[in-house]
Amino acid sequence: MNTKIENLLSTINYPEDLRKLPLEKLPQVCEELRAFLIDELSRNPGHFASSLGVVELTVALHYVFNTPEDRIVWDVGHQAYGHKILTGRRENFHTNRHLGGIKPFPSPQESDYDTTTCGHASVSISAALGMAVAAKKQGIDRHVVAVIGDGAMSGGLAFEGLNNASSTPNDMLIILNDNNMSIDRAVGGMKEYLHQLHTSNRYNRLRNKVAQRLTSWGWLTDSGKKRIIRLNNSLKSFIHNQQNVFEGMDIRYFGPLEGNDVISLVYTLQSIKDMNGPKLLHLHTKKGHGYQPAENNPTAFHAPGKFDPETGEQLTKNADGEPPRYQDVFGETLLEMAKKNPRIVGVTPAMPSGCSMNIMMKEMPDRCFDVGIAEGHAVTFSAGMAKDGLIPVCNIYSSFAQRSYDNVIHDVAINKLHVVMCLDRAGIVGEDGPTHHGVFDMPSLRTIPNLTIASPMNEAELRRLMYTAIECQNGPFVIRYPRGNGVMVDWQCPLEALPIGKGRLVSEEKNNTPTNKHMVILSMGPLGNTVQNAINAIAQEQDNAYLPAHYDMRFLKPLDEEIMKMVAEKYDHIITIEDGSLNGGFGSAILEWLADNGFSKKVTRLGIPDKFIEHGAPAQLYKLVGLDVESIIKIIRQD
Amino acid sequence: MNTKIENLLSTINYPEDLRKLPLEKLPQVCEELRAFLIDELSRNPGHFASSLGVVELTVALHYVFNTPEDRIVWDVGHQAYGHKILTGRRENFHTNRHLGGIKPFPSPQESDYDTTTCGHASVSISAALGMAVAAKKQGIDRHVVAVIGDGAMSGGLAFEGLNNASSTPNDMLIILNDNNMSIDRAVGGMKEYLHQLHTSNRYNRLRNKVAQRLTSWGWLTDSGKKRIIRLNNSLKSFIHNQQNVFEGMDIRYFGPLEGNDVISLVYTLQSIKDMNGPKLLHLHTKKGHGYQPAENNPTAFHAPGKFDPETGEQLTKNADGEPPRYQDVFGETLLEMAKKNPRIVGVTPAMPSGCSMNIMMKEMPDRCFDVGIAEGHAVTFSAGMAKDGLIPVCNIYSSFAQRSYDNVIHDVAINKLHVVMCLDRAGIVGEDGPTHHGVFDMPSLRTIPNLTIASPMNEAELRRLMYTAIECQNGPFVIRYPRGNGVMVDWQCPLEALPIGKGRLVSEEKNNTPTNKHMVILSMGPLGNTVQNAINAIAQEQDNAYLPAHYDMRFLKPLDEEIMKMVAEKYDHIITIEDGSLNGGFGSAILEWLADNGFSKKVTRLGIPDKFIEHGAPAQLYKLVGLDVESIIKIIRQD
Repeated sequence: MNTKIENLLSTINYPEDLRKLPLEKLPQVCEELRAFLIDELSRNPGHFASSLGVVELTVALHYVFNTPEDRIVWDVGHQAYGHKILTGRRENFHTNRHLGGIKPFPSPQESDYDTTTCGHASVSISAALGMAVAAKKQGIDRHVVAVIGDGAMSGGLAFEGLNNASSTPNDMLIILNDNNMSIDRAVGGMKEYLHQLHTSNRYNRLRNKVAQRLTSWGWLTDSGKKRIIRLNNSLKSFIHNQQNVFEGMDIRYFGPLEGNDVISLVYTLQSIKDMNGPKLLHLHTKKGHGYQPAENNPTAFHAPGKFDPETGEQLTKNADGEPPRYQDVFGETLLEMAKKNPRIVGVTPAMPSGCSMNIMMKEMPDRCFDVGIAEGHAVTFSAGMAKDGLIPVCNIYSSFAQRSYDNVIHDVAINKLHVVMCLDRAGIVGEDGPTHHGVFDMPSLRTIPNLTIASPMNEAELRRLMYTAIECQNGPFVIRYPRGNGVMVDWQCPLEALPIGKGRLVSEEKNNTPTNKHMVILSMGPLGNTVQNAINAIAQEQDNAYLPAHYDMRFLKPLDEEIMKMVAEKYDHIITIEDGSLNGGFGSAILEWLADNGFSKKVTRLGIPDKFIEHGAPAQLYKLVGLDVESIIKIIRQD
Repeated sequence: MNTKIENLLSTINYPEDLRKLPLEKLPQVCEELRAFLIDELSRNPGHFASSLGVVELTVALHYVFNTPEDRIVWDVGHQAYGHKILTGRRENFHTNRHLGGIKPFPSPQESDYDTTTCGHASVSISAALGMAVAAKKQGIDRHVVAVIGDGAMSGGLAFEGLNNASSTPNDMLIILNDNNMSIDRAVGGMKEYLHQLHTSNRYNRLRNKVAQRLTSWGWLTDSGKKRIIRLNNSLKSFIHNQQNVFEGMDIRYFGPLEGNDVISLVYTLQSIKDMNGPKLLHLHTKKGHGYQPAENNPTAFHAPGKFDPETGEQLTKNADGEPPRYQDVFGETLLEMAKKNPRIVGVTPAMPSGCSMNIMMKEMPDRCFDVGIAEGHAVTFSAGMAKDGLIPVCNIYSSFAQRSYDNVIHDVAINKLHVVMCLDRAGIVGEDGPTHHGVFDMPSLRTIPNLTIASPMNEAELRRLMYTAIECQNGPFVIRYPRGNGVMVDWQCPLEALPIGKGRLVSEEKNNTPTNKHMVILSMGPLGNTVQNAINAIAQEQDNAYLPAHYDMRFLKPLDEEIMKMVAEKYDHIITIEDGSLNGGFGSAILEWLADNGFSKKVTRLGIPDKFIEHGAPAQLYKLVGLDVESIIKIIRQD
């Protein structure tokens, strides 16, 4: 394998090197790029199968288009590893997703070849349309290409972009990378729709060959091409009872074509790149293409962790005796409760395996709804179900839930509907970086009336909060919890109700030394464990050390008035700690309570500062922002 | 007119009364309902033209469906006045939109006939799908109908709902009320698309008549009907080069039909109501139907204010010598600046007249983009343009901007793009009620890194902030300002830059009496005027009265460090005042600064409390929440 890698790929530092190669060398470049990806990703985990599927498209795009002057806008960016490797980042690619290393998604801050922030889905068409319009308005002769997957196409934002693409003068090319997948499988009418477009593949190949031949002979004018396409589509529509939404929106449609044939891709891109007006090229690619284990199980190879490149065996650590992942506690607990209460249903926007709702889905497929990449709909749909007697448990990653902000306000909170929102991946998520950290949910949700908001310090608390939210509440309830593993090996505690708006004492103040110090730490969510570790470390180090009291407040809203009153009266120094933005978050809620109740206290707030936090391991990042054991010890010892 | 009103409408208190009438009486009910609406709305302003357009549909729906057991989900709810009048609210309809009176939009809190919160667009399909699924899951035999306009259909949420409608078992009926309008005119590919569906009207009428005849004779089975429809659509598609996106998504499609013929509507609804699976009925209605002035100018009659019912003359007050509306200052200033800087472009999601961007649009149509009801796209599209050298000024009502929350974070803020967001209708908006108050923007946006956020106290400040944001900044800038009129008659001040993050002294402390009182009021935005009125009132009433200092902080973010330091050192009591939610807003930012800088101060925060504020005149509502002159005087005098 390594000899091949030496051959061509090592000579391609930037796309201009690629563009010097003769066309017939491109299949070899693809082969080497694929081998490089398999080799790198087997050792340094990341998003895998998506990038394999678009190796040919990536090479073809940079071959045909004059990047970075021409703009390629990747949607989500899972699939852009090949793009990174071809655009000056091959040598450093082993640092991908590491602290200080190559960023997890494309980012204009890292490279001119990256045109827009990636991470969230369905953005590319709108962003590319903006760039295409900007070029046109300024008289710049520039191509703009958006590359969007069929999964991302189910997002409302993509539709809004499409809807506007035809009404605004632009020459954008949209490439629909259709692998019949989002992270799990694509769902909904759009999937059906795209599937129908495949059924006439042979017919299409023929049609396209004829058209290509005519074009290459120069026999077809632009309007001639257009007419042929229209006629063909109408015919196809008649024969197959299928219609083309894109052409209906006045976007010129090409396809579907096989997307893993680099030579034919280059021809196609060359023939359509200079056509005027918005156009869409529909490609059929295979997620994981060219690596059998990933082709066989693309969901498992979406982000597989380390694996054996020869066999595809995933090298997961043996998890025996380790605490479970929060997401699995959610999944198991949801199933456990759903078995007893037929009104419970599950809703997830395209993340059944990511949030472990697949545990319930497997046993109760008709009571779980994967609505596709459609966070807004997930919440409003849940509201509709809650209105008429079901208890929807809607699980969305915290950062993706930013997309359902208005739905929470308008469709859930105003009417106090009993929707249980479970926000997975709250706090620092780690290697996925700034687009994925779930750090804005507390300030943005806390301002919404009628919401109850809580965060568990451990797995048992998560179970109790879920039970409380689902069985004991009759209004909207948000539970936010982190990515990754919990802290308890025995997490299967009995399901019991917690009093709403009540925190709990975790450890008492210990003040044996002659000091006037009276310090209390109020924590929200899982960082309470870090606080405990700090307190325990101090206690172990020195027998008579001063130890502050520690309360796990549990509920961001409503705050525990009783604890607050006691704390305000008893302690001189209040420390708040949270895994969210300090602007308006938990610490601010504490400040507000104190001010509103006439207390003027010394308060130290620990949390995420007012900047976007980069990627890296969660422990590294928490240390960077001073939310680690050492930083807390320091603060306890200060004063 | 009044004699007619007596006839039938007065006997209909609830839909069950309507359902007792013979079919042939329905046109008269429609006529009376229309006359009632014209009469009421001419005296008591509200949303007008939309409701007129759906009089027949409203009557037909309540006639055919067993409301409230069957669910009708109105999208937005502008059009639901007829629905209100037929569902127990005729007698009180004169209180519509008044404090304590009938709510401005449908609300389940007001009536069992109102199924979901209305106010924001594109919600109905998702919510109705939830209700349809809930009915099915619980074995309830219930019809669910969503009524959505073509404007709302351009919203991504509507598409997400459609996309899911086919993949989830349900029998929902979607009625597409197509009047080729949102508030201004509908834009984008979807409009083109729907327009194409009209072009074959004669053909369709024929086709539907045949199908209806066959159905009424019982000659068609369900699958027979389906086959006929499919065949017809394919034929139509072939002939007219048009395709049907709905059928492509496996949603059975009927139409387009004339939507202002109540008898035919009843027949149609009866014939399709019990069909299984999701279905869409496409109606062509006329906004303002049956009232010539509104038909002629539906945009002006969307919410016309008082008017003469005979002539249609709009009875606007003479505005000479009155301060302008903030929105007009925005519109005029934008045009003024755009004339000098060709990089400036305007973006609005379906609100060109609502935000007065139509002023620029009229002179520079190619530099303004009305993207339809698509707030998320508006922001991401702006980000794309900013990336490549334009300066987009994106105007969205504060409450609608909740829909672009993730776009601001993900597409604008992370990359520090120079997008200027102008949030009109910030603060209490008045009669449109809880769905429209713009009170969550400060807490939710303040937590996003890289944003500059400001609010002007008057029109001149708005102009200066716009100039600063557009010409002097190279990053994201949010300006929030209220609905309605400003406070300056001479507002056309020179455009000059303001220093970022600097507030200004409005009035100095006056402390002639023997008191130790040291009070300062820090205001954000237009409530600064209320503060000044309070201070002036005290000064006028009593010569030697204690007057607090007053600073207009202007910038929510970054806060003015200099003022903060001075204030923290000099004053004993800090009062903050803002027209937004107290949870995490401006006052909290002040508390945070004080805590982080080691000050423990008495702080009183005035703002919107933690509940949804109902509808009413803005002055009434501000009084209700203690943000009026009297309340401020009281607080100044206390201490």
